[in-house]
Amino acid sequence: MQLGMIGLGRMGANMARRLMAGGHQVVAFDRSADAVAEVARHGATGAASASDLAARLSVPRAVWLMVPAGVVDAALADLSPHLAAGDVVVDGGNTRYTDDGPRARALAARGIEYVDVGTSGGVWGLERGYCLMIGGTPSAVRRLEPIFEALAPGPEAAPRQRSGPVTPAERGFLHCGPHGAGHFVKMVHNAIEYGLMAAYAEGFNLLKHGEPFDEPADLGAIAELWRRGSVIGSWLLDLTARALERHPSLDAFEGHVADSGEGRWAVHAALEAAVPTPVMAAALFARFTSRGEDDFANRLLSALRYEFGGHREPGA
Amino acid sequence: MQLGMIGLGRMGANMARRLMAGGHQVVAFDRSADAVAEVARHGATGAASASDLAARLSVPRAVWLMVPAGVVDAALADLSPHLAAGDVVVDGGNTRYTDDGPRARALAARGIEYVDVGTSGGVWGLERGYCLMIGGTPSAVRRLEPIFEALAPGPEAAPRQRSGPVTPAERGFLHCGPHGAGHFVKMVHNAIEYGLMAAYAEGFNLLKHGEPFDEPADLGAIAELWRRGSVIGSWLLDLTARALERHPSLDAFEGHVADSGEGRWAVHAALEAAVPTPVMAAALFARFTSRGEDDFANRLLSALRYEFGGHREPGA
Amino acid sequence: MQLGMIGLGRMGANMARRLMAGGHQVVAFDRSADAVAEVARHGATGAASASDLAARLSVPRAVWLMVPAGVVDAALADLSPHLAAGDVVVDGGNTRYTDDGPRARALAARGIEYVDVGTSGGVWGLERGYCLMIGGTPSAVRRLEPIFEALAPGPEAAPRQRSGPVTPAERGFLHCGPHGAGHFVKMVHNAIEYGLMAAYAEGFNLLKHGEPFDEPADLGAIAELWRRGSVIGSWLLDLTARALERHPSLDAFEGHVADSGEGRWAVHAALEAAVPTPVMAAALFARFTSRGEDDFANRLLSALRYEFGGHREPGA
Amino acid sequence: MQLGMIGLGRMGANMARRLMAGGHQVVAFDRSADAVAEVARHGATGAASASDLAARLSVPRAVWLMVPAGVVDAALADLSPHLAAGDVVVDGGNTRYTDDGPRARALAARGIEYVDVGTSGGVWGLERGYCLMIGGTPSAVRRLEPIFEALAPGPEAAPRQRSGPVTPAERGFLHCGPHGAGHFVKMVHNAIEYGLMAAYAEGFNLLKHGEPFDEPADLGAIAELWRRGSVIGSWLLDLTARALERHPSLDAFEGHVADSGEGRWAVHAALEAAVPTPVMAAALFARFTSRGEDDFANRLLSALRYEFGGHREPGA
Repeated sequence: MQLGMIGLGRMGANMARRLMAGGHQVVAFDRSADAVAEVARHGATGAASASDLAARLSVPRAVWLMVPAGVVDAALADLSPHLAAGDVVVDGGNTRYTDDGPRARALAARGIEYVDVGTSGGVWGLERGYCLMIGGTPSAVRRLEPIFEALAPGPEAAPRQRSGPVTPAERGFLHCGPHGAGHFVKMVHNAIEYGLMAAYAEGFNLLKHGEPFDEPADLGAIAELWRRGSVIGSWLLDLTARALERHPSLDAFEGHVADSGEGRWAVHAALEAAVPTPVMAAALFARFTSRGEDDFANRLLSALRYEFGGHREPGA
Repeated sequence: MQLGMIGLGRMGANMARRLMAGGHQVVAFDRSADAVAEVARHGATGAASASDLAARLSVPRAVWLMVPAGVVDAALADLSPHLAAGDVVVDGGNTRYTDDGPRARALAARGIEYVDVGTSGGVWGLERGYCLMIGGTPSAVRRLEPIFEALAPGPEAAPRQRSGPVTPAERGFLHCGPHGAGHFVKMVHNAIEYGLMAAYAEGFNLLKHGEPFDEPADLGAIAELWRRGSVIGSWLLDLTARALERHPSLDAFEGHVADSGEGRWAVHAALEAAVPTPVMAAALFARFTSRGEDDFANRLLSALRYEFGGHREPGA
Repeated sequence: MQLGMIGLGRMGANMARRLMAGGHQVVAFDRSADAVAEVARHGATGAASASDLAARLSVPRAVWLMVPAGVVDAALADLSPHLAAGDVVVDGGNTRYTDDGPRARALAARGIEYVDVGTSGGVWGLERGYCLMIGGTPSAVRRLEPIFEALAPGPEAAPRQRSGPVTPAERGFLHCGPHGAGHFVKMVHNAIEYGLMAAYAEGFNLLKHGEPFDEPADLGAIAELWRRGSVIGSWLLDLTARALERHPSLDAFEGHVADSGEGRWAVHAALEAAVPTPVMAAALFARFTSRGEDDFANRLLSALRYEFGGHREPGA
Repeated sequence: MQLGMIGLGRMGANMARRLMAGGHQVVAFDRSADAVAEVARHGATGAASASDLAARLSVPRAVWLMVPAGVVDAALADLSPHLAAGDVVVDGGNTRYTDDGPRARALAARGIEYVDVGTSGGVWGLERGYCLMIGGTPSAVRRLEPIFEALAPGPEAAPRQRSGPVTPAERGFLHCGPHGAGHFVKMVHNAIEYGLMAAYAEGFNLLKHGEPFDEPADLGAIAELWRRGSVIGSWLLDLTARALERHPSLDAFEGHVADSGEGRWAVHAALEAAVPTPVMAAALFARFTSRGEDDFANRLLSALRYEFGGHREPGA
């Protein structure tokens, strides 16, 4: 089918290419003309603006926004005047789930459907496919199924564990619930990701600094080893093995680790529901700390140690 | 080659069977005659005692202990009088790495080699193979290579990410360093495992109790979905999907979660090396807490709330 | 001066009594006629309703609300129609700081001042005085100064550490900033309190279960000991010593520890500002866990241990 | 009575002075002749060596070691040849409790008593008195009671909360149990201290960076405010108020926070006893992190973010 794609960054451009490889037709727009030209080289129809994109799509339109969470409202303001009843808009970015309901209601007032899709896969999605967590009305979700099918990895991406007909989840996309449910599940997904990453990072840090033997541990070989047969095999471990093979000392990285919002929102949702999430919170705080956000607290600790014990620490 | 196997529990019996399937000859002993009979049915030579096992092995002998960490010393006391210079003993269980050096030195005084092997794979190892983390002298490790090769999953167990000749790590076994290094790496592996498990457990708890939508989330479908294309795909997630499909409410489990020592030892090693491991520690404490070990602390909190605020909590 | 007091629970009734002991005149209302009668017995003028209270106060009025955070809006709706330009309303409860700005603006539109006061002191405040964290306009705060002075503990409540004229902070009340600043500082105060309480609770739990000696530690004596000369002396430790002397085993308490909102809001504010607060979060999660909120997570851990290791835990 | 004091650092010198102020006679030795001269100026008898100190004491001798944990064995090796049956040695430093039993047994073989005393009070102890946590035999502890009495703060250091005769705990010293019990209780004390300090540090960091108002919070005034009437009043808060008044920005401190062993030993003891101590562990890890010990872990996180998402963080 035909899809408009707005936002041709790393994610959007690759998704457009995967859709076209799956036989779909893509009309593409981005503020960067170069990004449009690049995806046009792969077969997409380039659009010069959101209104141009809307004009080039046959009705009822389907448009996928793949832009940063902070500019979704601006992108919708740009696009929606050119949409009509019966059209459907997808927000495939990392939007906070609480923003989806209001947007859906505003569009529904004009007969336009809104679907939120949490999209996982990163730069590998072009090749591996994207894992899609979907919220919206059943009819809108059903209508977009060919798109989801083409973007998703498909059932063969993991060994089958169930019997009976193959479910959508096994193909890599799932209608998780009403507006916001897709982004909610994606938010939890990312918070789990933070926890998993932190567990590996602590482990390799412990191997590096805690091993009591003369020879330093070969961290890249250990990561490679654990990929096979161990309980902790995972895709993140695959990537860890790649990273440690190429950069054994990781000197190319400074380790000021960003967080993109979902981790904070997830812990916030946990606070509201009284769900204990010590691992998620620890992983998130470690990222804050990696950026020096503990600085004032540490200086107060040094000051207190000086006050009660006369301890002079560096700088005191 | 020929191997003596002492300890035929879930792990040892399956390892014996995988070795025999790989063309090796196994002489097997366990305190349970039934366990010996069972593995003999699969082709092993049964032994009636450790001394009988030693007598049935051609010299130089290779004996693999697959017994709980707490009885390794007893098993060695039982076996070693019947060993001779040139023999090699493997401890494949979950021994603390600090115990390996002393044992190795005691055996080395009699010309016997000691090899520590951290073994991951659980009840699935028979089929998937075992991930082997190995410590000891190069000569002893080299001599056991056919055994490791047969137990390990082999390179095809994960997509290859390196070029050049296939390394042992890619086949699923790795000589990690001197005596103790195998168990050290296995200890860190298990602590990572605790962290990964806790991250998933928190995430599904948050999906269950934190989702703000009317329809409850289908946790089994979400786990299945994430297996394909997402950043958090892993073997533990595969198992999570299996568990949630069979037991959607998990009512079959009470949730008093055991810990088998490695998590504690890993955090202890981190303390000694000043390595921050907040995720590992949080995962470990969550297990303690699941067993009610926070009870007195919580009662003190209630008592304090009563003292300063007059708050009466249930039971006060 | 004269003050209307609405809400005569543990906190409000004691505050009214302390104000009267300080020479102020109190007009008091509560939904419970008994509570009104009780405080009238101590010299207050009882009111039959919010409108009656407003009628009994000379203009410009000053009214202090001491009600649960969840009913402040209702109390304001009840009261404010009977207020006039020039009056001032204090919210002395545990309101979320983000609610103060909107309320202040709504009242300001009618010329009514709003002051938020975080109040610490618990059931001991009648005797010890209340620590007051204040937000609002300078003029409104200045006008209420006699009230704050009477409620606060006064400078002699702690050894003086500064020279120069005694500051309001040293008398026990502080104008912290604009609307919301009082409740913000109180929120942080309570989150610190959670952390302090958890530190003591962990310590006494460790003394109880971790001491490797034959004789059990005398926890009450240890708490008493630490009150003098140690680095960890505090008012919470004073209360701990009291509680442990009366209830050495703490059997009177079940340990399902409530949290009253500020801890969650504080961690949420930390998330928004990227401030790492691992201790506050751990203390909060421990309270959630004390109420069984980790149950589903723990059951998933047991289920996973069964899946990969065949471990059968109680109930499995 | 007469006491030998070995180790005249900040703690030992002040303790000697407090003892002399209490009417006791002190014979003092330190490797630094200047330190000996200084305490001699306050009335002590200086000794030129451990053997000289032993010679100057009347038998049965009482000698107090106030040296770093790492040199206690050396100090004992230096001193003990000059001791005789009936003498008593006190280790008043921050020794690990597991070291006390072996030392006590070695000395007991020669008829010499060993007493372990955890000493809290820091540089303020000269004036405030020291809180003493004591392990050893009842007879040895009883014999040293005049010394403990003089060092301890005395009952008036805190408001009395009990009736009946004043107990030793209320005077500021307590016989906690057999050899090691004093240092065990001190170890837990210090781990609580870490947790308390971290709770305040997080709170003030949150006030500094999380307050959503235009005017920055006056942290020194807030600390001063909380000293009176609030639930979180404590000696550490007194010191916080002092530090923030003198150094509002804390720029004099770099915040590389040391830890002196007890925190690690306490968490280790908690691991061994399966006692959850998330706050203590978080406080300890924050200190490790303040010293950059999370560096490699953070760089791995950055590397992973680059691998899966193409995210380039500073330095990548």
